[in-house]
Amino acid sequence: MSLETTEPEHAFSGDRFDAIVNLCKRRGFVFPSAEIYGGIRSTYDYGPLGALMLRNVKEAWWRSMVQQRDDVVPLDAAILTNPKVWEASGHLATFTDPLVDCRNCKERWRADQIEGVCPNCGSADLTEARPFNLMFKTFVGPLEEDASVAYLRPETAQGMFVNFANVLTTMRKKPPFGIAQIGRSFRNEITPGNFVFRTREFEQMEMEFFVPPPDAPRWHEYWCQERFSWYQRYGISPELLRLRVHDAEELSHYSAATSDVEFAFPWGWGELEGIANRTDFDLNAHARHSGVRIEYFDQASGERYVPYVIEPAAGATRTMMAFLLAAYDEDEVGGDRRVVLRLHPRLAPYQVAILPLSKKEHLSGLAREVLAMCRERYMCDFDDTQSIGRRYRRQDEIGTPLCVTVDFDSLEDQAVTLRERDSTQQIRIPISALVEELTRRIGA
Amino acid sequence: MSLETTEPEHAFSGDRFDAIVNLCKRRGFVFPSAEIYGGIRSTYDYGPLGALMLRNVKEAWWRSMVQQRDDVVPLDAAILTNPKVWEASGHLATFTDPLVDCRNCKERWRADQIEGVCPNCGSADLTEARPFNLMFKTFVGPLEEDASVAYLRPETAQGMFVNFANVLTTMRKKPPFGIAQIGRSFRNEITPGNFVFRTREFEQMEMEFFVPPPDAPRWHEYWCQERFSWYQRYGISPELLRLRVHDAEELSHYSAATSDVEFAFPWGWGELEGIANRTDFDLNAHARHSGVRIEYFDQASGERYVPYVIEPAAGATRTMMAFLLAAYDEDEVGGDRRVVLRLHPRLAPYQVAILPLSKKEHLSGLAREVLAMCRERYMCDFDDTQSIGRRYRRQDEIGTPLCVTVDFDSLEDQAVTLRERDSTQQIRIPISALVEELTRRIGA
Repeated sequence: MSLETTEPEHAFSGDRFDAIVNLCKRRGFVFPSAEIYGGIRSTYDYGPLGALMLRNVKEAWWRSMVQQRDDVVPLDAAILTNPKVWEASGHLATFTDPLVDCRNCKERWRADQIEGVCPNCGSADLTEARPFNLMFKTFVGPLEEDASVAYLRPETAQGMFVNFANVLTTMRKKPPFGIAQIGRSFRNEITPGNFVFRTREFEQMEMEFFVPPPDAPRWHEYWCQERFSWYQRYGISPELLRLRVHDAEELSHYSAATSDVEFAFPWGWGELEGIANRTDFDLNAHARHSGVRIEYFDQASGERYVPYVIEPAAGATRTMMAFLLAAYDEDEVGGDRRVVLRLHPRLAPYQVAILPLSKKEHLSGLAREVLAMCRERYMCDFDDTQSIGRRYRRQDEIGTPLCVTVDFDSLEDQAVTLRERDSTQQIRIPISALVEELTRRIGA
Repeated sequence: MSLETTEPEHAFSGDRFDAIVNLCKRRGFVFPSAEIYGGIRSTYDYGPLGALMLRNVKEAWWRSMVQQRDDVVPLDAAILTNPKVWEASGHLATFTDPLVDCRNCKERWRADQIEGVCPNCGSADLTEARPFNLMFKTFVGPLEEDASVAYLRPETAQGMFVNFANVLTTMRKKPPFGIAQIGRSFRNEITPGNFVFRTREFEQMEMEFFVPPPDAPRWHEYWCQERFSWYQRYGISPELLRLRVHDAEELSHYSAATSDVEFAFPWGWGELEGIANRTDFDLNAHARHSGVRIEYFDQASGERYVPYVIEPAAGATRTMMAFLLAAYDEDEVGGDRRVVLRLHPRLAPYQVAILPLSKKEHLSGLAREVLAMCRERYMCDFDDTQSIGRRYRRQDEIGTPLCVTVDFDSLEDQAVTLRERDSTQQIRIPISALVEELTRRIGA
């Protein structure tokens, strides 16, 4: 609702969006799910290049949030867990949209999105609005009865809260420390849309950072800055991003302060990530509902307290879409129009493409040796069809930062041509120095 | 059923199993899901070390099956897709267990697991057996009606079949080539159990390899050998593994031949992975149900055919459990009993632990510099509490292959002690040569 209050100054046109959607389909990033059956509304399957890129987005988050920190540990919780978790979290009671039924044609609508008249048949004979829970419901075990109801998790966060005490004990951590998780969540949205921006099944990258309560505002500020800069480190320019503070009315019931990292989508500012100060709401709720004491005891000070939680929660698929939109460019190379994805080397589906100039066997053999070296560390493509110019264009279009061309001279000088995507500059480099040069340009 | 036909010669004792379950809980590998609410039967959350190890198991599979091959591309399909997929695949009609109700106490049982008498109340007044579908059912959108039913996928495989044509076109592949996917699947098992061996929510690592039909038997043999050796490459000794050919009675309706890679679990041989020749069953079924032609046209030969599919399908969590069981060892170091996980360096939760001999600030600073270098490439632990001997024991118990000790001499000679887990051997090495040495021992 509040997403489109002000238009971004540097918003992309609808054309850019269409170009991305088209490229995603044509080059195998994103397909409508089960397309041969007509798909299923707002559900997507990630094709080979999309699966690689989505994996890289998650990997980049993981590197920053887990691997390169010693104050964050990971977790991987079940999607279907004990339903008492959702009772305690408040999702069962309040995670709802208001719906109305049309008494005439029996269609069902979101009350806040229609104007008192059924959009299908025009009837004004509508029921009162009733709350509709957005959690998907299923039954575990052979009986469809209340006792066997379970829900698909609507967020990964609660997995971290209910395991807080277990992690504290087994990992011997003390606040400030975080628990991070990447995983699928599910919300039965009435109006999903905008390609992969809002889908009912989606991938979250969430981290719950537990801190002494007095330090919460400072850590909230820290994580706002840290996360805002992460998108820039991976290639989104600052004018396409903003950090927007929620006002009191917009705040969730559990939050003392929330800021969103927003991206200039073609339809206006859209959330990539929310950074919330969830206070002690969740840990207290679970302590109350479970009857288990959940708190931290500081042996040094003798102090006992319930930590506050700072939560940076990002959406992986919409983040991937933002990276694609920000990376898309068209320029001219050698008089020809070129489409190029200027993706960060770590985010591109392939880091390196190996291109033997000909399919002749002795060249092919050397090219495969080079391939074997490179893919020890990097995801590589191998393409030996059509002209080298067309092959460069194909790699530019999917964002491959580096191409390695193996030509007939390579058989003599044991060197290859390394070509950089953005500048199209080429250098000659000995095969023995290649992997080191790739590492220098791409990272370890 | 056929799992326990012959007892493995080298089966682990129940004690080994108990030791692993205990270690998993105590050191943060695996927790009962939502334990503070009493859990939920046979559902687990992976704690920090389990999340790391599970990730490494999947990463090892991905390296072998995707990154290091140029005939396999990945995919990442939705869990909730169009239900017509499950109609075509046969899951709606045949993915069932036979259930009976007790008319006396109303309990429900799997017909093939009871002896004509209700195990709860002893009554013989049971209904006829009826088929119970193992797919979890839910409703998409605001109406709970037949038209909005969807199922949680019971296998990832169908995502590859329905996207076959899209992948063929966008990636310009031709048989033999494969599509690989790692992801959660769900089966409403009536009798889950054996810790993480059989759970209702589980993680699959599946690859569908499309081949010209005459080549199917040869490729089936290839993938049986390749997958069988993969488990050995990652540290399971051959006497704990067997490759078992399904006999005609056991074969699934879609399969012309299946072999299972089995591991000597404490309760007998148990499947880690099935390698099936699924023939053209799935592609034909989807072509018939969707009305879309699904086949490969070979431009060179002018030939048009429906490829056969060879499918190696592994379970990630039970594979992790097998690696843990195989790696567990107890020996004696310096007169003391030691528990050690002899995990492959790539599978261990941490590859490296950095251990400053003291918490003093100048030592701590250097240790953190070493940590920063190492975690560019590897997942590292940092531990500066208690005696160095106890810290080595803690790392041994979770399988960390290499410990780096930073001591007071390090401040003088800019060198550290590198200690190897299995042999407990220590060498002194300059900090400047450390990362290269780690790479030599662990891999790129």
